[in-house]
Amino acid sequence: MTKNIFIIGAGRSTPSLIKYLVDCSIEENFKLKIGDKDFSFLPSELSKHNRVKTIFFDVCDVSQRELEIEKSDLVISMLPAHLHLKVAKDCVKFQKPMVTASYVSQEIRDLHPEAIQKGVLLLNEIGLDPGLDHMSAMKVIDEIKAKGGIVKGFKSFCGGLVAPESDTNPWKYKFTWNPRNVVLAGQGVAKFVEEGEYKYISYHQLFKRTLSLRVLDYGTFEAYANRDSLSYRTIYQLEDIPTLFRGTLRRPGYSEAWDLFVQMGLTDDSYEMNVKGMTYNTFFTSFLNLEDRSIKECLKADFGTSDQVIEKIEWLGIFEDNNVELTQASPAQVLQNLLEEKWNLEIDDKDMIVMQHQFTYELQGEHHELHSSLVFIGVDQIQTAMAITVGLPLAIAAKLILKGQITAVGVHVPVTKEMYQPILAELESLGIRFIEEDILKV
Amino acid sequence: MTKNIFIIGAGRSTPSLIKYLVDCSIEENFKLKIGDKDFSFLPSELSKHNRVKTIFFDVCDVSQRELEIEKSDLVISMLPAHLHLKVAKDCVKFQKPMVTASYVSQEIRDLHPEAIQKGVLLLNEIGLDPGLDHMSAMKVIDEIKAKGGIVKGFKSFCGGLVAPESDTNPWKYKFTWNPRNVVLAGQGVAKFVEEGEYKYISYHQLFKRTLSLRVLDYGTFEAYANRDSLSYRTIYQLEDIPTLFRGTLRRPGYSEAWDLFVQMGLTDDSYEMNVKGMTYNTFFTSFLNLEDRSIKECLKADFGTSDQVIEKIEWLGIFEDNNVELTQASPAQVLQNLLEEKWNLEIDDKDMIVMQHQFTYELQGEHHELHSSLVFIGVDQIQTAMAITVGLPLAIAAKLILKGQITAVGVHVPVTKEMYQPILAELESLGIRFIEEDILKV
Repeated sequence: MTKNIFIIGAGRSTPSLIKYLVDCSIEENFKLKIGDKDFSFLPSELSKHNRVKTIFFDVCDVSQRELEIEKSDLVISMLPAHLHLKVAKDCVKFQKPMVTASYVSQEIRDLHPEAIQKGVLLLNEIGLDPGLDHMSAMKVIDEIKAKGGIVKGFKSFCGGLVAPESDTNPWKYKFTWNPRNVVLAGQGVAKFVEEGEYKYISYHQLFKRTLSLRVLDYGTFEAYANRDSLSYRTIYQLEDIPTLFRGTLRRPGYSEAWDLFVQMGLTDDSYEMNVKGMTYNTFFTSFLNLEDRSIKECLKADFGTSDQVIEKIEWLGIFEDNNVELTQASPAQVLQNLLEEKWNLEIDDKDMIVMQHQFTYELQGEHHELHSSLVFIGVDQIQTAMAITVGLPLAIAAKLILKGQITAVGVHVPVTKEMYQPILAELESLGIRFIEEDILKV
Repeated sequence: MTKNIFIIGAGRSTPSLIKYLVDCSIEENFKLKIGDKDFSFLPSELSKHNRVKTIFFDVCDVSQRELEIEKSDLVISMLPAHLHLKVAKDCVKFQKPMVTASYVSQEIRDLHPEAIQKGVLLLNEIGLDPGLDHMSAMKVIDEIKAKGGIVKGFKSFCGGLVAPESDTNPWKYKFTWNPRNVVLAGQGVAKFVEEGEYKYISYHQLFKRTLSLRVLDYGTFEAYANRDSLSYRTIYQLEDIPTLFRGTLRRPGYSEAWDLFVQMGLTDDSYEMNVKGMTYNTFFTSFLNLEDRSIKECLKADFGTSDQVIEKIEWLGIFEDNNVELTQASPAQVLQNLLEEKWNLEIDDKDMIVMQHQFTYELQGEHHELHSSLVFIGVDQIQTAMAITVGLPLAIAAKLILKGQITAVGVHVPVTKEMYQPILAELESLGIRFIEEDILKV
């Protein structure tokens, strides 16, 4: 019997998801309907495939939404996170499973009892991060627990970077995902636990307090703390773990340079400046107390800026008289505007996803350290590593739900063996594979 | 004929205001009615004076509010700023002049046409800062303009500090006003103009970029920038002035030490920590990456903290194991809790208000610099310098309005000669006197 999959959203992260489902559509007897207002990110071999139908879809049109959800067998929502709720409610109402890559909101969590009662699964956080991180971490945690070990420490790192062959600027970074999120990353406070003590890192310390790590044979990375590590104690059932830390990966040197922008206030998004007629040079110096000094002298004296950082910001063209070409904008928007010019992926560039979990655990009186690492490089500018690692877990989960191999009901994230085992196995067959290294410590 | 003054609010800043009006109540034939729920800040010789009546008053009780305002000849609102609007609307309705020491909100500004039509004056920003700063600055600005000079620069500084004889701790600071405002001071961004260029100082640079100045024979002070200097261009009719800066005064060394708290994130009020069972020592170290170092070693290495700053924070007891005695609190609340213990005014302490305006102007081709400075020391813990310098401008303005010597109608701040001239003259007779020094620059 034909299974109808309704995919809401056809943006940048959908081609890999759709390609996977198209590729298995004959064997599994899937038909795909994709609803959006813009299909420009979708390659024509997918949008014109005979098992694919694209429709103009407005999620806020209640009657269209209800009609399409009722006609489908499963819904994949690729909408911005705040729009999932409308879809989720209809999915519960019409008893259709829903799959998303977004963090579960409290409103969606509140649908749990009703979803159970209706026998419907709402599966969230099944992309890359959140998603693949949950599954790969829970696999190791369950294995350690199964052999009688006690997890004492868990540090987990993830980053969307450029592949080594595309690593061509002094920042060793290009935008492979939402630029605005990169510019605003880390605002607020980072919380974690270390040897049983709560630790807080304010935004203005965040990029100074990086950790260094090596991942497989891809060299050295640095990590700054994510905002919320604490909630993972509950999600991963590690309530009493003494050390739990999550961080974001960059190549060494990035954080020191980014920190200058943070210290100067260039990442502030809370007010607008009048930047009409400003150049990047005058924008930059409006945050400095230059007196009679050159910009470099001022940075070195007032911010302790190193030559490596000067090189990076000079490369951005900040000392040049190029026009900002905005009128009213927050400092963060001006900075983003500049970075979007400089950190764009070239047509031949490939991106790279790097993830590493570091566990410490005790087993029969001995201390172990286990690293589980993934590096995945994109195919091209459409099948990016980001799109593939977000899209494939979603697609595989959808397939397994429709085949009756995932049977949970209610609101879930993929932390149970029933989910992570078959999904990780299939991802591995597709080349998304974690390498585990277990070291006995003396 | 008796004039009935209705004063709403009997808090910490009212005794000086009320004393002035009581002292002239027989000569001017004033009767005072004071409405509040708590009169504990009011000395009994004032509350029991035969020209004073205190009533239990709830500003949100519409019928009581309307009744009392209608029966009065003038209303002085000492309410928190967000409550003035209700009073202002009734004052317009019943054609009663109103006086406040608060910044004019947009909602009150919007009453201007109606107030003019009803022939009512709503006079705001007539305390210390805002208030005395407006009047003393406008006097100089008008004088420079009157003799044909052009104002090229205006820097204005104000601080509430302790008198030299009460300056007994290494911070050279004690709370003489709302502690919460002191802890949160400067959050956001400071904007000003300097030699025709817009300048922005982010919160994390604010306490590093201080100016140094001397005021009369009271020694040296340092100033950090206030958030909004730009709006004063309009208020003072200095639209095209190349340099305009407003700052807050502290004694030298304060800002460098406070900056450590800012950099560590201890002034963050945006999230709550679980501080149950914490000592100030563990609270402090939860923001540090101690590793195997002592707190002092960590501060010196990671924050470049000087010995002078170490001395100041050590004096606060931050390295000791005293209990925080809170359960859930933001870092800023914990810090405030500690400072309220340490920076409290002793019974014999006196406070001190310091204000300085620095003008540069051109006159007949010559460059002048003019400083106008005020230092005012409080009498005791009730008649503080803060309460006197806030209360007397309010009280004098109220008297002059009732005597018909201030005749403006509409919504105003005291920047016109009609207002500032008689008020400054009377303040001078009461010992609140600006010293002017004009220097011809070569």
